[in-house]
Amino acid sequence: MSATPHDTLHQYLNEIRRQVDEELERLLPGAQEYPPSIHQAMRHSVFAGGKRLRPILCLESGRLFQGEEKSLVHLGCALELIHTYSLIHDDLPALDNDDLRRGKPTCHRVYGEATAILAGDALLTLAFEVLSAPGLLPEGRSPRIIHELAHAIGTRGGMVGGQVVDLEAAGRQTDAATLQYIHSAKTGAFIRAAVRCGALGAHAPEEDLARLTVYGAKIGLAFQIADDLLDVTGSKEELGKSVGKDGQQQKATYPAIHGLEESQRIASQLVREACAALEPYGDRAQTLHEIAHFLITRKT
Amino acid sequence: MSATPHDTLHQYLNEIRRQVDEELERLLPGAQEYPPSIHQAMRHSVFAGGKRLRPILCLESGRLFQGEEKSLVHLGCALELIHTYSLIHDDLPALDNDDLRRGKPTCHRVYGEATAILAGDALLTLAFEVLSAPGLLPEGRSPRIIHELAHAIGTRGGMVGGQVVDLEAAGRQTDAATLQYIHSAKTGAFIRAAVRCGALGAHAPEEDLARLTVYGAKIGLAFQIADDLLDVTGSKEELGKSVGKDGQQQKATYPAIHGLEESQRIASQLVREACAALEPYGDRAQTLHEIAHFLITRKT
Repeated sequence: MSATPHDTLHQYLNEIRRQVDEELERLLPGAQEYPPSIHQAMRHSVFAGGKRLRPILCLESGRLFQGEEKSLVHLGCALELIHTYSLIHDDLPALDNDDLRRGKPTCHRVYGEATAILAGDALLTLAFEVLSAPGLLPEGRSPRIIHELAHAIGTRGGMVGGQVVDLEAAGRQTDAATLQYIHSAKTGAFIRAAVRCGALGAHAPEEDLARLTVYGAKIGLAFQIADDLLDVTGSKEELGKSVGKDGQQQKATYPAIHGLEESQRIASQLVREACAALEPYGDRAQTLHEIAHFLITRKT
Repeated sequence: MSATPHDTLHQYLNEIRRQVDEELERLLPGAQEYPPSIHQAMRHSVFAGGKRLRPILCLESGRLFQGEEKSLVHLGCALELIHTYSLIHDDLPALDNDDLRRGKPTCHRVYGEATAILAGDALLTLAFEVLSAPGLLPEGRSPRIIHELAHAIGTRGGMVGGQVVDLEAAGRQTDAATLQYIHSAKTGAFIRAAVRCGALGAHAPEEDLARLTVYGAKIGLAFQIADDLLDVTGSKEELGKSVGKDGQQQKATYPAIHGLEESQRIASQLVREACAALEPYGDRAQTLHEIAHFLITRKT
């Protein structure tokens, strides 16, 4: 019996994950390197079994333009370091106060708050060290990629901006425009940047970049809607983190504002639009199509 | 009556501070820009009256090699953003738990812990956005400068590494080697990097970079020893922050390990050695000499 497309995608994603994890293993200081506590805390969170979605998107986007494999994996690792920093700080008692992440105790639960704050800082810093390392990104591309990424995770419509508005919206009535800002800034901007960085790292022409930007923006929002839905419909066992927290904390979410069915409809529509933007690439964009569909059908 | 050299240095440093502050004003998002709370928190700490030591060192180092003034100020601002991030996180309840910084309430005291954590994250991120902005650093220099800085504030002998060891050393017997690591990593590496970045931004040849590295390393350590001494001998009014905290927290310090007089002697010796490294530049390095002496005679 031949493998279904879904099985194939899974095998394929597992193979990319393996490559990314191997490179992350090399980039992160060893668990015994001095001072060991911080390196262990960084490793705890980086190797807690993430989906490596951002590296995968970066790699697939770059492959569309014959990007150099090693560069793209390297770039993807920097994205994952940034993503992990954001999770560690997000989980802190002063922010979301989460005990579980990916089925494991969160960084501050294991290493204490001080070390968790510093581990997040260190991962963000290491990401920029990796992005600027000599000879690892294509000649001359490093500043533009760093600039785009830093913007995407900053306060002006980027990740930190989204975090702030999200925190301030908790427990209040949130309108659809504010929710849109939170989702687009908190997760959307970085996912879009992950897709763009791969294309930039492969020297894609501006018109292709524009197409990939549409794809990235649409799947970024779809991903976040799916995340909101999983908090309502998912199980703690499958997700490896607390569920129903958004409701308890009266967080602004798509299901809370638009209802379950309408949220599912919007997510599917976004994925269709994302895939339509890749139409000129035909079958070469097959994996990016599959990833887009996977994002809204996943159970974790 | 003519101004004394000290007065002249003060006027001169004030003039540089003015330039740096003007540029920081331009680089930071406005206090009303959405989402305003985070931008106000960032501005609160950046404009709390810092000495702008790192920008000044960067600028003076670059001027020695005819660096472009605008680039050097820009670079200096990125250093100050990083410095401010480190202060905000350092002051958090989970770390040093400080209420006062530069005579003003610390960021988390005014804006709460969550916003303070994110404001620190945002300043660090903005620094890298500034460092990679197109056309602002000399052509092709951006990756090397970013790489050096990121390393200097990371975990491997850099700022975060020093922080971690410092936190872990509190309340324990600390030997001279550990103290040396803390000081060299926590403040020394970044001050050395500030000096080097100015020279790098001005395309200084490697042998000059090596001299500036010696200068930067020596004054970095002297600065930290002076800081330790001020915690013992300074007043809260002059310093604008709590004094005697190192002793209360049983922090590892030079006076605690080497005694007051010996610590003063070591600091003076380091400043002499720092200045000796600049001997080939003669009078052109006059300001760097004066800054070195100022660092160990300052009252704040």
